[in-house]
Amino acid sequence: MSTNQDSISELKEEIEAELPDDLTVSRVTYEGPELVIYTGTPRKFAKRDGIVRQLAQKFRKRIAIRPAPGTQTKPADAEAQIRELIPEEAGITDLDFYPTTGEVVIEADKPGLVIGQRASTLREITQEVGWTPDVLRTPPMESSTVANVRNYLVKEREERREILERVGEQIHREPLEETDWVRVTTLGCCREVGRASFVLSTPETRILVDCGDKPGAEGDVPHLQVPEANPIADLDAVVLTHAHLDHSALLPLLFKYGYDGPVYMTAPTRDLIGLLQLDYLDVAAKEGRTPPYESEMVREELKHTITLDYGDVTDIAPDIKLTLHNAGHILGSAVAHFHIGDGLHNIVFSGDVHYSDTRLFNGAVNDFPRVETLVMESTYGRRGDYQTDQEDSERKLIDLITRTYENDGKVVIPAFAVGRSQELMLVLEEAMRTEKLPTMPIYLDGMIREATAIHTAYPEFLRDGLRQRILHEDENPFLADQFEQVDGGEEMREAIAGGEPCIILSTSGMVTGGPIMSWLELLGGDPENALIFVGYQAEGTLGRRIQGGNREIQLTDRRGETNRLTLRFTIESVSGFSGHADRNGLENFVQSMNPRPQEILCVHGDKSATDQLSSALYQKFNCRTYAPRNLETFRFA
Amino acid sequence: MSTNQDSISELKEEIEAELPDDLTVSRVTYEGPELVIYTGTPRKFAKRDGIVRQLAQKFRKRIAIRPAPGTQTKPADAEAQIRELIPEEAGITDLDFYPTTGEVVIEADKPGLVIGQRASTLREITQEVGWTPDVLRTPPMESSTVANVRNYLVKEREERREILERVGEQIHREPLEETDWVRVTTLGCCREVGRASFVLSTPETRILVDCGDKPGAEGDVPHLQVPEANPIADLDAVVLTHAHLDHSALLPLLFKYGYDGPVYMTAPTRDLIGLLQLDYLDVAAKEGRTPPYESEMVREELKHTITLDYGDVTDIAPDIKLTLHNAGHILGSAVAHFHIGDGLHNIVFSGDVHYSDTRLFNGAVNDFPRVETLVMESTYGRRGDYQTDQEDSERKLIDLITRTYENDGKVVIPAFAVGRSQELMLVLEEAMRTEKLPTMPIYLDGMIREATAIHTAYPEFLRDGLRQRILHEDENPFLADQFEQVDGGEEMREAIAGGEPCIILSTSGMVTGGPIMSWLELLGGDPENALIFVGYQAEGTLGRRIQGGNREIQLTDRRGETNRLTLRFTIESVSGFSGHADRNGLENFVQSMNPRPQEILCVHGDKSATDQLSSALYQKFNCRTYAPRNLETFRFA
Repeated sequence: MSTNQDSISELKEEIEAELPDDLTVSRVTYEGPELVIYTGTPRKFAKRDGIVRQLAQKFRKRIAIRPAPGTQTKPADAEAQIRELIPEEAGITDLDFYPTTGEVVIEADKPGLVIGQRASTLREITQEVGWTPDVLRTPPMESSTVANVRNYLVKEREERREILERVGEQIHREPLEETDWVRVTTLGCCREVGRASFVLSTPETRILVDCGDKPGAEGDVPHLQVPEANPIADLDAVVLTHAHLDHSALLPLLFKYGYDGPVYMTAPTRDLIGLLQLDYLDVAAKEGRTPPYESEMVREELKHTITLDYGDVTDIAPDIKLTLHNAGHILGSAVAHFHIGDGLHNIVFSGDVHYSDTRLFNGAVNDFPRVETLVMESTYGRRGDYQTDQEDSERKLIDLITRTYENDGKVVIPAFAVGRSQELMLVLEEAMRTEKLPTMPIYLDGMIREATAIHTAYPEFLRDGLRQRILHEDENPFLADQFEQVDGGEEMREAIAGGEPCIILSTSGMVTGGPIMSWLELLGGDPENALIFVGYQAEGTLGRRIQGGNREIQLTDRRGETNRLTLRFTIESVSGFSGHADRNGLENFVQSMNPRPQEILCVHGDKSATDQLSSALYQKFNCRTYAPRNLETFRFA
Repeated sequence: MSTNQDSISELKEEIEAELPDDLTVSRVTYEGPELVIYTGTPRKFAKRDGIVRQLAQKFRKRIAIRPAPGTQTKPADAEAQIRELIPEEAGITDLDFYPTTGEVVIEADKPGLVIGQRASTLREITQEVGWTPDVLRTPPMESSTVANVRNYLVKEREERREILERVGEQIHREPLEETDWVRVTTLGCCREVGRASFVLSTPETRILVDCGDKPGAEGDVPHLQVPEANPIADLDAVVLTHAHLDHSALLPLLFKYGYDGPVYMTAPTRDLIGLLQLDYLDVAAKEGRTPPYESEMVREELKHTITLDYGDVTDIAPDIKLTLHNAGHILGSAVAHFHIGDGLHNIVFSGDVHYSDTRLFNGAVNDFPRVETLVMESTYGRRGDYQTDQEDSERKLIDLITRTYENDGKVVIPAFAVGRSQELMLVLEEAMRTEKLPTMPIYLDGMIREATAIHTAYPEFLRDGLRQRILHEDENPFLADQFEQVDGGEEMREAIAGGEPCIILSTSGMVTGGPIMSWLELLGGDPENALIFVGYQAEGTLGRRIQGGNREIQLTDRRGETNRLTLRFTIESVSGFSGHADRNGLENFVQSMNPRPQEILCVHGDKSATDQLSSALYQKFNCRTYAPRNLETFRFA
């Protein structure tokens, strides 16, 4: 600790040496990976364009400049001045001052107008009032999740700052060990889909990557009890690639086990887990299972999140730098690149990837300065796992819906709330707008509408083009009239089931529970209706069994009674909408990497998928490939 | 604990139910893996031939019957009666009574005569005096090591019994976890020779197999700090395959780290580590290195040993049974077979093996009821690593010595004190006796004589035939006149160097220190002398460098000064005497296994050796093979 204080003093001196004499430094601290400089001359700092960039380059850190207490204009006066500086079209919806850190958080409909060209407006604000502005987007669709998460983080701002300072000390500690090896331990998702979780370790550091559940086998949790993961409380960091529950569901459990460190992810992932994990607890309770943790632990986790933008190279330990890149899979999904030691080794966890562009997202990034080891998803890794291209898939989907419509039937599409639902909404909205499909109601059941609203809060994570449309209310496809939230419970569902032809998008995506179960019961007996699968159905799920031809299913009905149900509606699968790269996409992801990895671990796929992908990649690219089992530890470097 | 007491009470009742009414049970306890039954009727027990075997079969345990306190004849009277019962030719050398356990330890020149046919004399003793006899062999060559170890264990007998009872409770605990996986972690000796060490783990249990140093790279110790091995204090058991320091040197360190559990090995291995580890500390001190532990830790280790005979199937944890088998490598060396779970998995650690018979030992056992996984040494695993057969080797050795003798030169042979030295002694003694070689002095320097004496204490571990010769003093080859101990230090060495032609067997075997260094200095400059390598020289050792052609070496001479020395004597290698199977032997070891393992980990060899052996075994036997790196964890079952 004293060493750390010494090095902080040294750092302060070094910073002062870099600055012109009229800029003062009152305090220097780390908040997580960020270097925070408090200054008695915040206005002068803001005037010196370029000085922060210069410091960032010199110290290879993200830098935040904050006013030392007592140097700013009083909030009441400052607020008036700030509102003066920002153009009215920016649409300020909220404005709060935080004296401890000298920050003013400005929430607005159009954050770009608050920031100004090359951040000129932000600098002007500081020059005028001495406060450091922090800008957030007001989502164009109201989202209770986004609001709740933001309110919670505001409430916990002080404790968060303490956590960040502690984490900052940890990251910038003097290392005790020489980093001369790198290991990866598989805690789950090997030769199976579900419970993604890995430990990445060096002599100095241990990182957990993902901590998911297994859909259709809720008892199968990651092997967190193995020595490589313990003590959980001493892990240096947790990194979450994306919000889907098979990657995130059990992350709050770590806090129950005493973990008290940072969780790195993108900002949309943070909001999405706020939605999905609380729902996970809800579903567990409804199904009579004891949830593995309480909602309090979700709040603990949120309090410990550190959000990263794609491309930011971030120190997360003395010997590890993390960079998240777009994975193309769902909102905020990331490929995680770890640079270890001083050039010792580079390892990439693909998370779930979609390699080509979709309507929602740009394709996954696979361009890294160096990668020796790739841990890669294999969902569609089998020899025959090719998907039809999206154009053909859309045509097939539209045909199926049209036929059902003409037969006076209703279409049910099970979909993950996050990802495939929004992709389908875009497809259906366009088809109706261009009259390829008759306009009819599209009911969103489960958390789909809320998830969609979260998408609109983060347009910068969406595909170029779509972003712009969302920001112009008239063109926001998600606000089209035909979308209607199912918010009236079973009564509303019965009314819909008895009504006109329509489309129903409903969770859960693998038919493992949730409102989709009601829809099976209400619509499954009628041959005029149709069930259309558009996403991957994992082994052990009811979705997989139905897809595989099972027509006799057991359902716990709305009155809690177990009934046998014979499905008589049309059952179809349309393959082009998956959020996962198909076999082609997986091969292309590796093929176009430059340099190529020396070894690839094929994970996150059934045994045949990981085996076949592993052997294909070995033959094609002549690198070492493995289809690991759970509970193995690989050593690299 | 209470559960354990409950199950002990139940066990006592079950035992009583098995016994005729006139046999009583006063107490039942576990001492390590052994079930100990105290009885108020020891004499009657001894009369019932077969009852102990019947209990052993029923409870699948080794069983010891001991008299309850107060049921035996007084020691003074008992001693007279015992001496009466045992034939005089048995040569009793010591006889001690231990009232707490009711045992009488009888040390004799001919233990077989104390035991009698099918243990008849032992039973007679108990019938007469009520004591349980325990028989030890008095070594035909005096060995201070054997004497010291025995005396120490006698002194610590009470504490040992407490340890054994504690271990017994641990082994027979109610398991907390279901054993549904098996893992092996490599802590050392992968792609290298030295620092053998593995963790074998299940959800319930963790076992350490071997814990050696690395000759020529003393700082490279096993990676004991990895999570899979920690906490060291909580390991369930340690198993030692044999006494060589590259397998045993750092075992006492475990006790420094808080380990307090059992160490399983054969009885000769226990005595040999008493010799080798203390010498290891000695050498470190002499070379100015800080030894990693103190001699007190060697004593701790000895106190915690549980010795097993070859072939004894022994419970060492609730879910693991261990059987040691002859490995043919050195005295007491073992192949360790682990049966895990109730038929879940079987894994064999070869330790170091010699597959064919040698003069000293029968060839390694490779016959197991089941083996799925084999962890196999690869010292001579390279494609070209074939050794000439022993007959040719012996002829070559004898020729070399004869030629040197005829040139009036002296022969220096670096050899491990344990193993190769005794093999050579047998070869040389026979060659001189049969006049294939002129009789000349054979000087034994370092610990060779003492190690030889330990061999004579355990003739049942030696090859059939040799055993008998040792037991008849006139034929004991190790007692031949020409063998002479170098016990006069440097003065004696100088006298020998200045004297008549002779042979010198000297440690260390890889020329990494010890008296061999003096011999290089005294004899290395003279071209008439010869240095003959007969064993494996590991990478990084001076032996390897000299063998590789290096003639200019640096030596710290006897006065502590560093000098350059040019070696001018003849340098030869004779390959047939290694204690290791050659490439042929390694392949045969696998080939003749029935059933063959499903996967083989090739370890304990340079990278090229493990790689080449791994790929050859894969091609020949179509099983999965690996050449692991250190710090990896494999999962089986």
